[in-house]
Amino acid sequence: MTAFNAIVGQSGGPTAAINATLSGVIRGCLDSDRIGTLYGARNGVEGILRGDTIDLSARFSDHEAQLTLLEHTPAAALGSCRKKLPALDDAAGQSTYETLFSFFSEKRIRYFFYIGGNDSMDTVAKLSAYARAHGKDLICVGVPKTIDNDLEGTDHTPGFGSAAKYIAASTSEVLRDCAVYTVKAVTIIEIMGRDAGWLTCAAALPRLSGKGEPDYVYLPEFCFDTERFLSDVNAALQKHPNVVVAVSEGIRDHNGRYIGEGTQSGVKDAFGHAYLAGTGKALELLVRERIGCKARSIEVNLLQRCAAHLASKTDLDDSVRVGLSAVAAALEGKTEIMMGYIRTGTGFETRAFDVSAIANRIKTVPEAFVNETHNGVTDACLDYLKPLIAGEAYPEYENGLPKQFTF
Amino acid sequence: MTAFNAIVGQSGGPTAAINATLSGVIRGCLDSDRIGTLYGARNGVEGILRGDTIDLSARFSDHEAQLTLLEHTPAAALGSCRKKLPALDDAAGQSTYETLFSFFSEKRIRYFFYIGGNDSMDTVAKLSAYARAHGKDLICVGVPKTIDNDLEGTDHTPGFGSAAKYIAASTSEVLRDCAVYTVKAVTIIEIMGRDAGWLTCAAALPRLSGKGEPDYVYLPEFCFDTERFLSDVNAALQKHPNVVVAVSEGIRDHNGRYIGEGTQSGVKDAFGHAYLAGTGKALELLVRERIGCKARSIEVNLLQRCAAHLASKTDLDDSVRVGLSAVAAALEGKTEIMMGYIRTGTGFETRAFDVSAIANRIKTVPEAFVNETHNGVTDACLDYLKPLIAGEAYPEYENGLPKQFTF
Repeated sequence: MTAFNAIVGQSGGPTAAINATLSGVIRGCLDSDRIGTLYGARNGVEGILRGDTIDLSARFSDHEAQLTLLEHTPAAALGSCRKKLPALDDAAGQSTYETLFSFFSEKRIRYFFYIGGNDSMDTVAKLSAYARAHGKDLICVGVPKTIDNDLEGTDHTPGFGSAAKYIAASTSEVLRDCAVYTVKAVTIIEIMGRDAGWLTCAAALPRLSGKGEPDYVYLPEFCFDTERFLSDVNAALQKHPNVVVAVSEGIRDHNGRYIGEGTQSGVKDAFGHAYLAGTGKALELLVRERIGCKARSIEVNLLQRCAAHLASKTDLDDSVRVGLSAVAAALEGKTEIMMGYIRTGTGFETRAFDVSAIANRIKTVPEAFVNETHNGVTDACLDYLKPLIAGEAYPEYENGLPKQFTF
Repeated sequence: MTAFNAIVGQSGGPTAAINATLSGVIRGCLDSDRIGTLYGARNGVEGILRGDTIDLSARFSDHEAQLTLLEHTPAAALGSCRKKLPALDDAAGQSTYETLFSFFSEKRIRYFFYIGGNDSMDTVAKLSAYARAHGKDLICVGVPKTIDNDLEGTDHTPGFGSAAKYIAASTSEVLRDCAVYTVKAVTIIEIMGRDAGWLTCAAALPRLSGKGEPDYVYLPEFCFDTERFLSDVNAALQKHPNVVVAVSEGIRDHNGRYIGEGTQSGVKDAFGHAYLAGTGKALELLVRERIGCKARSIEVNLLQRCAAHLASKTDLDDSVRVGLSAVAAALEGKTEIMMGYIRTGTGFETRAFDVSAIANRIKTVPEAFVNETHNGVTDACLDYLKPLIAGEAYPEYENGLPKQFTF
């Protein structure tokens, strides 16, 4: 039996665990005699389109230490992209598919692995559908990755646990920092999440320690009323001088207008998402103007998605595992799928999900995870989050700094 | 010989190591039979003025585990303040001193330990001078603490190493995050430092790994020219698409005007320092407007001063040690001093410095640590910084989160 080749790419925003998943795919391919060469696409499908790939089988053969280093390195080692493939019925876009499939054919590639979020699953769905429609032997397997945790089907997404752990630990530290003064002050922590507030929920995890948590948590799933917010903050200030609030960047008012809209540029990414910044800053200014006390905002920003120094061990281990499972599923001939997790009594098992049911959809935080007044999260939410941040996966250090893999 | 009592307070901004120094003071006092009770002042001198203290000798007697927990807990466990004592010749301010000294007298307090930065050393200097002028038996010892590293005399300040390690590690992660895309983008990391750029220098530490560093580093010690900055950034964009720049919050133009001034509120703290925010944001907007590429700014904000989860082991160990040495010096009868470090061939030794030569002064980054064009740091600077971030001092974790001490 002649071995076919495989290719893997990374797409969308970086995470602390996306390279762990890449490592899982590499390990799975290296271990199989049915896969010849595993290629790595630089910058996702963009790399395939410009013929920019790297021979990962050669690079990692017998390099266990390098794979371990890769697993602890944040962001996308192969580079990423935000390229959206043309619609299948877009005549002008056919040349894109022809370029991709002629590359696959030339390199004898039968297995296509794509690590990314819901936009990247759109790429997997389209390539699968194109292959099916044109009788191409390409097995397409998506592997999830997003700190946003907003993919349908899977219990959670690789990368989310580490970002959540970073948010939770950083919030617990900020709570301590804010508690030292006696002067009334409101601190607003702005957390990533355009449409789903999963990461912002993680700011409430310090409740598990019994030593405080943010006074309020506001998610983009629920309409944000500034008057209600001011009244919440005033009520908290009656109780203690140091009020801490966690908000998703994507909170919107009853007209659907982003709270941070006035303080941002209106730039949109390739998928048409508004580029947000300034939600925390807008609330800080509001508190200063309307309540008149000291106010500040902390935008956790990129730090939350690349903090490999505080990765969740559960997340990193499971991210490797889901990469391995993607290769196993591909070798069983499964295509048009995204691998993911189901929750069992003791942990998580990998499972294949229909990719077309995931692409371009968003899984939001359910009502049961939020209190009745929509300004805090329930214990059920923390029960869901707790196992995802379990364990520490420290990188190796050299010169006082985490060691990182580079090609 | 009757034992006298002691009191310790924490003042100024929180750090990841100020509680380690508190632990050193507690350990030193518990170990001496010449000190009876060690009181802890809540919120620094404010707590003494309102009679709000805690019996630390009772709280920590035989509680080694609690002291270890305290050492790994960020921010000021006793609470902090930004209270400035009245001038000694201010007639209206005499009652403040009378309240303080009657408290000391009533509680038989002979030893006063104050953990803080240059403003706090002003408190130590004034109390010492008052005691001397009024024949009071009070031994006053300052123990440094500031992430700013801007105290005269001492080689470095406790708390700085941990903040520098966090800045360096986070910058190395952000560099990886920014490297994944092929689209031209400028990322500005704004780091604390009003007048001294020590912490911003730490952003260049990833150079030690040989795997990249920010393209430019701008410090408040040197005039910031926006045209020169734009030309720097343009030059870097010619070489690679992902430009990363580290700036101190306190950079100023040739008129001494803060670069972030247009984007902030003009609020001043009790010591008359302008409350800065928005330097990175101002540069982000400038890049977008004048260069026209994607730009974003990351204000590391409070996260950099309370990140106990990534404390430097050298910093934490030395912070305990400097607390111990303060007690030893006090028992030798030394007063009007601040304990600090001198650098030896193999590490650091504690030493006493004259507190009046430190209070209200600022040690800035010397020319030798900056390149000729004032937009980067020299290897000599990294040689200075490297031992300060050495070693990891991980806290214990529970439920996936760092355990913290609380009273």
